[in-house]
Parts: sequence; structure tokens; C-alpha cells
Amino acid sequence: MGSDSDFAIVKDCISELKKYGVPVEARVMSAHRTPDAAAEFAKSARDEGFGVIICAAGMAAHLAGVMAAHTILPVIGIPIKSTFDGLDALLATVQMPSGIPVATVAVNGAKNAALLAIQMMALSDDTLADKLLAAKADMIEGVKQKDAKIREMAAEL
Amino acid sequence: MGSDSDFAIVKDCISELKKYGVPVEARVMSAHRTPDAAAEFAKSARDEGFGVIICAAGMAAHLAGVMAAHTILPVIGIPIKSTFDGLDALLATVQMPSGIPVATVAVNGAKNAALLAIQMMALSDDTLADKLLAAKADMIEGVKQKDAKIREMAAEL
Amino acid sequence: MGSDSDFAIVKDCISELKKYGVPVEARVMSAHRTPDAAAEFAKSARDEGFGVIICAAGMAAHLAGVMAAHTILPVIGIPIKSTFDGLDALLATVQMPSGIPVATVAVNGAKNAALLAIQMMALSDDTLADKLLAAKADMIEGVKQKDAKIREMAAEL
Amino acid sequence: MGSDSDFAIVKDCISELKKYGVPVEARVMSAHRTPDAAAEFAKSARDEGFGVIICAAGMAAHLAGVMAAHTILPVIGIPIKSTFDGLDALLATVQMPSGIPVATVAVNGAKNAALLAIQMMALSDDTLADKLLAAKADMIEGVKQKDAKIREMAAEL
Amino acid sequence: MGSDSDFAIVKDCISELKKYGVPVEARVMSAHRTPDAAAEFAKSARDEGFGVIICAAGMAAHLAGVMAAHTILPVIGIPIKSTFDGLDALLATVQMPSGIPVATVAVNGAKNAALLAIQMMALSDDTLADKLLAAKADMIEGVKQKDAKIREMAAEL
Amino acid sequence: MGSDSDFAIVKDCISELKKYGVPVEARVMSAHRTPDAAAEFAKSARDEGFGVIICAAGMAAHLAGVMAAHTILPVIGIPIKSTFDGLDALLATVQMPSGIPVATVAVNGAKNAALLAIQMMALSDDTLADKLLAAKADMIEGVKQKDAKIREMAAEL
Amino acid sequence: MGSDSDFAIVKDCISELKKYGVPVEARVMSAHRTPDAAAEFAKSARDEGFGVIICAAGMAAHLAGVMAAHTILPVIGIPIKSTFDGLDALLATVQMPSGIPVATVAVNGAKNAALLAIQMMALSDDTLADKLLAAKADMIEGVKQKDAKIREMAAEL
Amino acid sequence: MGSDSDFAIVKDCISELKKYGVPVEARVMSAHRTPDAAAEFAKSARDEGFGVIICAAGMAAHLAGVMAAHTILPVIGIPIKSTFDGLDALLATVQMPSGIPVATVAVNGAKNAALLAIQMMALSDDTLADKLLAAKADMIEGVKQKDAKIREMAAEL
Repeated sequence: MGSDSDFAIVKDCISELKKYGVPVEARVMSAHRTPDAAAEFAKSARDEGFGVIICAAGMAAHLAGVMAAHTILPVIGIPIKSTFDGLDALLATVQMPSGIPVATVAVNGAKNAALLAIQMMALSDDTLADKLLAAKADMIEGVKQKDAKIREMAAEL
Repeated sequence: MGSDSDFAIVKDCISELKKYGVPVEARVMSAHRTPDAAAEFAKSARDEGFGVIICAAGMAAHLAGVMAAHTILPVIGIPIKSTFDGLDALLATVQMPSGIPVATVAVNGAKNAALLAIQMMALSDDTLADKLLAAKADMIEGVKQKDAKIREMAAEL
Repeated sequence: MGSDSDFAIVKDCISELKKYGVPVEARVMSAHRTPDAAAEFAKSARDEGFGVIICAAGMAAHLAGVMAAHTILPVIGIPIKSTFDGLDALLATVQMPSGIPVATVAVNGAKNAALLAIQMMALSDDTLADKLLAAKADMIEGVKQKDAKIREMAAEL
Repeated sequence: MGSDSDFAIVKDCISELKKYGVPVEARVMSAHRTPDAAAEFAKSARDEGFGVIICAAGMAAHLAGVMAAHTILPVIGIPIKSTFDGLDALLATVQMPSGIPVATVAVNGAKNAALLAIQMMALSDDTLADKLLAAKADMIEGVKQKDAKIREMAAEL
Repeated sequence: MGSDSDFAIVKDCISELKKYGVPVEARVMSAHRTPDAAAEFAKSARDEGFGVIICAAGMAAHLAGVMAAHTILPVIGIPIKSTFDGLDALLATVQMPSGIPVATVAVNGAKNAALLAIQMMALSDDTLADKLLAAKADMIEGVKQKDAKIREMAAEL
Repeated sequence: MGSDSDFAIVKDCISELKKYGVPVEARVMSAHRTPDAAAEFAKSARDEGFGVIICAAGMAAHLAGVMAAHTILPVIGIPIKSTFDGLDALLATVQMPSGIPVATVAVNGAKNAALLAIQMMALSDDTLADKLLAAKADMIEGVKQKDAKIREMAAEL
Repeated sequence: MGSDSDFAIVKDCISELKKYGVPVEARVMSAHRTPDAAAEFAKSARDEGFGVIICAAGMAAHLAGVMAAHTILPVIGIPIKSTFDGLDALLATVQMPSGIPVATVAVNGAKNAALLAIQMMALSDDTLADKLLAAKADMIEGVKQKDAKIREMAAEL
Repeated sequence: MGSDSDFAIVKDCISELKKYGVPVEARVMSAHRTPDAAAEFAKSARDEGFGVIICAAGMAAHLAGVMAAHTILPVIGIPIKSTFDGLDALLATVQMPSGIPVATVAVNGAKNAALLAIQMMALSDDTLADKLLAAKADMIEGVKQKDAKIREMAAEL
């Protein structure tokens, strides 16, 4: 994440990864305040065994782009909401030039960033894939329960 | 892609995938016009050996979201520019609810969608990874040549 | 509705329909979390005697579009406000491709969605039409009373 | 329509209605230039046997709202693109206050406005409903043919 | 104003007019809920001696446009903030078609609407003009005092 | 106007004023390039017999605001379209602070600016008022003719 | 600053300048309320020894542009957030016409305005440059400490 | 500039700098394609005698921010128009986090970027300052000539 103030959002991403048993290293590195640390991390990430890099940043959110510039690992960008409801961060993350993609999720979409990373890793990891399938089934079950509850609440209106 | 009119953009994605030797199947399926075909494709895609699903759609671009709803494969969304400079397609693609991520690239970012898919597959495919590294080196070389050319052009102003 | 969290808004829609004596079934179904349930509902809705389908969803609001894809019943979309003041939900609901319309109302416009559905049904139901005419007359009377009250308040400024 | 310059867009709406055998009366009436004509039309529309009123207007598009103010017939609004890619017309059409809904379709969505009107009328007209079902089947067939064509084109890239 | 809920903003307009000794009649009339009352008011306003009509409305703010459609008196529009920070109301007020102008002020700009009306009337009323000149002088004096205060506050930082 | 390039738009304003027999003086003055000339003009405008000041400017359109700062005459602002479809010019013209109103018309709304100025002057000039009433009647007649023409064109579809 | 209400934001700018030992004069001057005072200040600023002029204003933020019109000193604009999340102030500040630049920083970016001014002055002041270098080093150290803290917090999730 | 395609815009910046006799080095360096070259340039720029760094980039325009991260020289950002009328580039350039300012000019504002750089250098270079003063006088003269021309053209309408 680009700032420790992003942690309130990013922790949902970290928790989700842990729930799937995926090892995660959470760092504060800034494309603007600590550009060398960010570049070095990205350059060596693949060799050090990282799989997917998830970057959260707000405003002129450059962190994901800078990471993607230095690695061939897939980079996921989470635009963090601050000014303009996060539109600045969204556009600064997603509108990457040809050659350097960033896989962008919704504004403050920390949990989805984790799931997307897990989906990528599950391409070659059937255990993770099974967990994703199980979670999808759970999610369906959860919506069904909410459906039942809302039917009751609506009946009482 | 959601419409055959998207092919003018999507073909850059297909070409890029072919350049890397990645097998690609190009389909026209619409979340709204052929929803059953789209759902069936997504449901069976993993079993049929697909790795990554790339969806291009404009306006109220639902295709990527519908695909993601039916699979645990990573889904990449390319917002296609029509009205509002593509802002409608971008928001309809990226602002997915928690639980169902779509990896969104830039408006009309067809080539980057291909590269992102290749990066995902390269997580477990060193040959693809080597090609990505080579392409990155080529890109740097290409920019250097443009740099030299522009220096000359600027000197003549 | 796409999520039970939308109920706080959607209940105004349900109440309005009940006020007119229109039978209503309130469901939680998600285009992304329970796509099969949503598709099945839409496919069978006409045969099961439903008249109009009203969908409320936020962010990349696909629910109304998915419903409309599977039925020829008129589908009304209520964009729910979350990020971007609801602009994402509005564009994702209204910008439907040719062939699959969604009748979109204002952001959080739950009551108007009900009234629009009643207007549709009133095309062949004079009792409903009479109730709409009476409500319009009541509304005019209500504004007149507010007009009188404001005149007084303005005089005291 | 609010201006004869809208006819280039609106004619797709008229043609679609004619294709379904729905009688249509095309008028130029402006909420701002001929407000009395517009109000009178709306007030008497139901008694004169009109079913659905479709309004197309650009910029500060008030026509649909003004019509809806004077009738209990369902009113469909087509925002016409001029300035701001049609965002002004979209917001001026869809953001109606509580009590007076306008069923809004996409910017320049003339054909969908026709289909939506037909869907409303088909609620009590099985012949129209059958035609809509047939058109949906044709549309699916059309996309399948495009799908086949694009597969070939992609193979040649 | 289009709704009595706008009074919290509009009262600043009324107070300002009263401060200048301009007679003011405050009304609640809605372009959508009481269109006939609004039209009748606008049609007879000039004959009844009104000078300038000031309209405040939010969302799809049609009130000023509807008034302007029925009169040759200058009409001032105050976009009221509700959804989209008032952008919907601003565009629906200012983007009038050729032939029917609305003099639009800032979102929630109630006091400025009053001043603009007074400026218009002051074109043929030197007493009002003198009051405007005096208020301008007072305003300059007021800013100078704030300037002095802020200099002190800044010195203490 | 702030730049001679605005003349292509502004000339419709000048022509409309001339059509009504209103004397008009067209000037190029820039809030940024010739601020002193602009300020001097505004300061002396009332004494020199000007009635209404109409300002056209694009981008960070400050001209109308600067004029309004220096006079108590009503100032009308025409936002000129260049970047962002004129949204920058619209917001820079309309969002004036309390105390200094600018009567803003639509983007590129040159003819309406003229009409608004004439409406202001007609408050104390019955000849102008009669011309406005006649023009309104002509406009209604013009729309009726277009209505008849479109009815025919629609019948032939 | 254009209004004393901007002081809550601007004081961070003043404090930062003082931290670097840069003499600063804080003033309230308005492009619209006290245009002559603003113009006079700008015209004489260079002769009176000012180096950089920093202007903070909201809404139709003209202050920086008006200052830049009257001086060849570099002018920095801070768009202040009020309506539209500050988008109006941003566009009114940054979209200056050719010939009159304003160096615009982020919405409410008061501290950065100070740093930008210091960077400009440091072009010919090595003491200031050394302080900037030291601050950059401190900032890197600060991020590293946050990085360590977040690693711990993440480990506990 | 981030891409050689930006040269069509950036050449106006280069020409303006040359007109003032300011030595200029034009480079193509990309925050994403050649991040190391960009970082090295920025790190050594001050030691190599550069004064101001001007960066032009479109879409997710990170170049100026990356440069600013590595230097204490003032960095000017020119957002280049491509998608979204340049709004993405503008926000990605201007919305920098606290500590790392970028002096942003208008979308495609290449000439103003040059002038702003010259203004910065003129703080300690009276020859440059005199040239700026002369240019300002020329600009005033140029507008006066346009004013005269437009007066004539308006008289002929």
C-alpha cells in the first residue's frame, strides 16, 4: 500500500488471502515517497518467489503502475477512495499505456483484489481452485438465506 | 466480445496472444442477447481447459461480470469506447461487488488484456515468462530509439 | 434486489406497490452471486404470472440487464447509490445495448419504480388507473398546502 | 420529439414500432417552445387512446418530465446526445422527483424505447408478446452467426 | 421553489431581496407535481406585475425551464444540491435550448440569485443601483477586515 | 469575448441583439491577457450607458466573473466549448461565490445570451417586450410547421 | 486566499513555508470581491520583493488566474474543495489559456503548494535545496517506519 | 515526454523555450516502459545542471510524478489528451500526495509549461524576466489588434 492510512481498507485483502492459506507480505511503499524501495521490491519480487503483487493507492495512484513497470508478475491495483470518490485513483490505476497492464478492481475493492490474486494462482493450484469453488457455493447459500429473510421483512411492510 | 463490432479493437488482443503462442478462441457472446450461451461457456470453461477469459464490451458492459459470476477462472474486462468516452463501460466493468472480481484494463486496452492474461499464465509457465521478459527488453530498446529520434527532431525546431 | 443491504431503499418501492393493492414478491437475487437463480427467475417469471420486474442494484449494477436478457416482461432498474453518488449504477443500468431495454428511474428512485410499474399495469387495469389519477390529485393538493405554509414562512423572514 | 433535428435518431423508434404493427403518431412538441401544445397532448393522450408516450430530447431534456407531469400513461424518455455526450439529457430525463417517474433508456436508445413500449403493451396483448419472443429468438440466432463469422476472422489473424 | 424542502436554501434568497426592499412572493410550485399551477403562474406573472422569476429545483430541475417557456420575464434558476452534488440540477437548469434562456447561478446559489434579480431591476431603478453600489463597498470593507484578521492568525502559526 | 476565436459562436449573439434593434458593442478583452482593459471597461460600463454585459470565454473562463467583480450591471456568461466539452468553462462561469452573480447560459448558448439580455432590458422597455412576445409566437408557429413536416416523414417510414 | 474560510486548509501551506524559514505574507484577497486589491498586489508583488504567489480559492476559482494575469512571478494555485469535490475549483485553476500559466497542485494540496514554491526558490538558493534534500530523506525514513509497523499489524490479522 | 506520439503537442513547449533562449533537452522516457532511465535521469538532473523538468504524458500519466519522486527540482506536468478528453491524465498528474508536488498546467498546455518554467528561472535571471515582461506587453498589443478587427467584423453583421 502507498500509505499506512490505506491499511483500514487493505486489511480486508490481507485477511482474505490468509483465509485461503496464501502467504502474504504486507508493505508500505510509495511510488512517490520511497520510489527506490518500490522499484527494488518489484524488480526482485519474482526471484524472491512472489506470485502476484497487489497495490493499493489513492489520488494520483501510481503505485501499481510503477510496480508493473518493473516486473512481469501480474499486478493488481486497488484504487483507494479519497478525493473525487476515488475517480482519480481509478483512472490513474486503470488507464495504463499499452505494454504495461494493471489488473484493476473496484474502488476500495480490497477483498476482490485478494480473490483475483487467488484465481490467478489457482490456475496451477487445484487446492486453491477447490477452495474458490467452495466459497462460491457458500456465497450462493448466503444469498439464499438473505433472500428468505428479506421475503419475510417485505411481507411485514 | 459482446458484439462483432468490438472486433476492430479485440483483434489486437488476439494477435498479441498468438504472438506469444497462446491458443485463443475468439467468440461473440452477449450477456444480454445470448445470456444462456455466455453462462454455459463460463460454467464449462475451466473443465474444457480454458485458462483466462477475456471479455470486451461497451456501454452497460456486463459481459465480464456475467462470466465471472459463473467461473473461478480469472476474468479480464476490456471496456469498449462508445458513449461517454467509455466511462460507462469502464464503471460497469470494474465496479464489481465483493466476491466476484473482474480484472479491468484501460478503455480499449485490448493488447494489455492479452499481456495480463499471459502474465497470469506465466506464473506457472517459464517459457511464457521468458517471452515476457524479452518483450520488456525490446520495449525498452524501442523507447530508446524513439528517444534518439525525438532528440534530433527537437534540435531542429 | 441484488443485496439485502438495498432493502432500506427498496422497501419504499414495496410499500408503494402494496398501497395500490398490487401483489409483490420481494427477492434477493444477484446477477453475480446467484446468477442461475436470477436467470431461472427471469425465464419463468412470465409463465408464473409476474407482470413487471423491478431490479435494484448498486455499483456495476447488472441485475436489471440480466433479468431483461431472459424475459420479455418490462424490467425496471433502480440504480442504488454507493460509490460515485450512484453514477456507476446509473450508467450500468441505463446504457443497455439495442434489443434489451431497461426502464431506468432515478438513483435510489424506489417509489418511482413502483409507480412506473403500476402505470404499465394500469394500461389494462382501469382500477389501478383510477388510483393513479386519485394519487395525482392528492399530490397536487399536498403541494398546494406546502405552498401555503411556505408563503407564511417567507412572510416571517 | 422536442426538435425536428432529433428525427435522425427517433426514426429508428418509429420503424421498430411499425415493424411490430403498433400504430404510432410522431410529433414535434417542445417542453420549452410549445409548452401548451405539449401539455394539452399529454392531458388528453389517455382519453384519445394512446398507450405509451415516448419522448426524445437533448440538453436540458424536459419533454418526458413535462409529459409525465400531465398523464398517468407510462412515459419513456430517450436522452438525445448533443453536448456532454448526452450526460445532460440523461440526467435531466432520469433524475425525476418522487411521484413522477420517467422510464429512461440509453442515450440515443431509440430502438430500445420502442421495444420497451411494446413490452408494456404486451402485458395485455399476447400477439405482441409472441412477436417479442420471436424477435428474441432471432436475435440469438443473429449473434450465433456473428459468432461463427468472428471465429473465422480470428483464425486468420 | 419546486419543493418545500428547498426552503432551507431559498430563504437566503428571500432575505436578500427583502434587505433591498424588493417585494417578494415565495411559492411552492412544481414543474412535475403541479404543472398547471406553474404554467398559469408564469403566463400571468408579467401582467400581475412581477419583474423577475427565480426558480429553485433539484435533480431533473425543470422548474426554471418550464417557467421560461411561458413568459418573457427573465427567469433565474438556482440548481439545488441533492444527488451528484447538484450536477444533475445544474445541467437540467442551464442547458436550455435556443430561444428559451434561463439565467443560471451556482449550485445552491440563493443569495446570488437575489442579487442578480436586483441587478436586472436596477437597470431602471437608481435607488436599487445605489444600494448595490453600497453593498459592493461594504463587501470590500468586509474582506479587508478578514484580511487583517488572517494576517494576524498567520503570524501566530 | 475572451478571444477572437470565440467570434464564430458569439456572432449569433450579436446578430440576435441587432435583430431586436439593441445597440451592441463587440469587444475582445481577456481576463488574463488584458486584465486592465477588461477591468476598466467593466468599471466604466454603467456610466457609459451600457445595460448588460455579455461575456464569452472557454477553458478556465474567468471573463464574466472579472467583469461582474467590477460592476453592478448584470453580467451574462457564455461558456465556450473547447476541452471537456465545455464543462470547465461552464463550472468556471457559473460557480461564482456569494455576492458576485453571473447569469450563465448553456455551453455555446450565444443566442440565448442575447435573448436573456433583451428580457432584462424589456423589464423597462415595452417595445422590446412586444418584440419578445412576437418572437415567442413565431417560434410556436415554427415548431408547428416542423411538427406537420415530421408527421409526414414518419408516415413514410 | 480568496476567503478567510480557506484558512483551515491554507495554514498548512503557511506552516510549511515557515518550517523552511521562508518569509510568508498571508492575505485575504478575492478576485471577485476585492478585484482591485488583488490586481494591485499582483502588479507590485515583484517590485516589492515577493518571489512566488500562492493562491487558494474554491468554486469558480479565479484568484490564481487573476494574479497570473498581472505578474510574471510564478503563480501556484490550490483548488479548494467545496462543491463537486473541488472539480470546479480544479478546472477553473488549471485550464488557463495559452500565455498565462498557473502551476496547479492537488485539491486542498496546501502543503505541496508550499513545497513547490520552495523548489522554485531553491533553484537559486542552495540552503533551501539542502533542506529539501533533508526533508526527502526524512520522508523516506518515515515511510520505512510505517512499513515496519504495518508489517506487524498485518501479521496479527 | 512519455511517448514520441506526444511530440506533436510538446514541440510548442520546446519552441517557446528556445524563443527565450533557454537551453532545452527533449527526451522520450516512460514511467512505465523505461522506468530505470526515467529514475536515473531525475536523480542526476540537478547535478547535471538541469533547472526545471517538464513532463508530458497521457492516460494514467505517471511520468511527472515519478520524476518528482526522484528530485527536488520543480517538475511541471502537461496532461496529454487521449481518452476522457484528458481528464485521466489531468487527475493522474495533479492529484499528487503530500510531499511530492507536481506543477500542473492545462490539458495539452505545452506553451504554458514552457512559460511557467521560464517564470521559475526568471526568479534569479533578470534577462529572462525582461523577456517575459516584453512578451506580456506584446500579448496585450496582440489582443488590442484582435479587438479592433472583431469590432469591424461585428459592425458588418
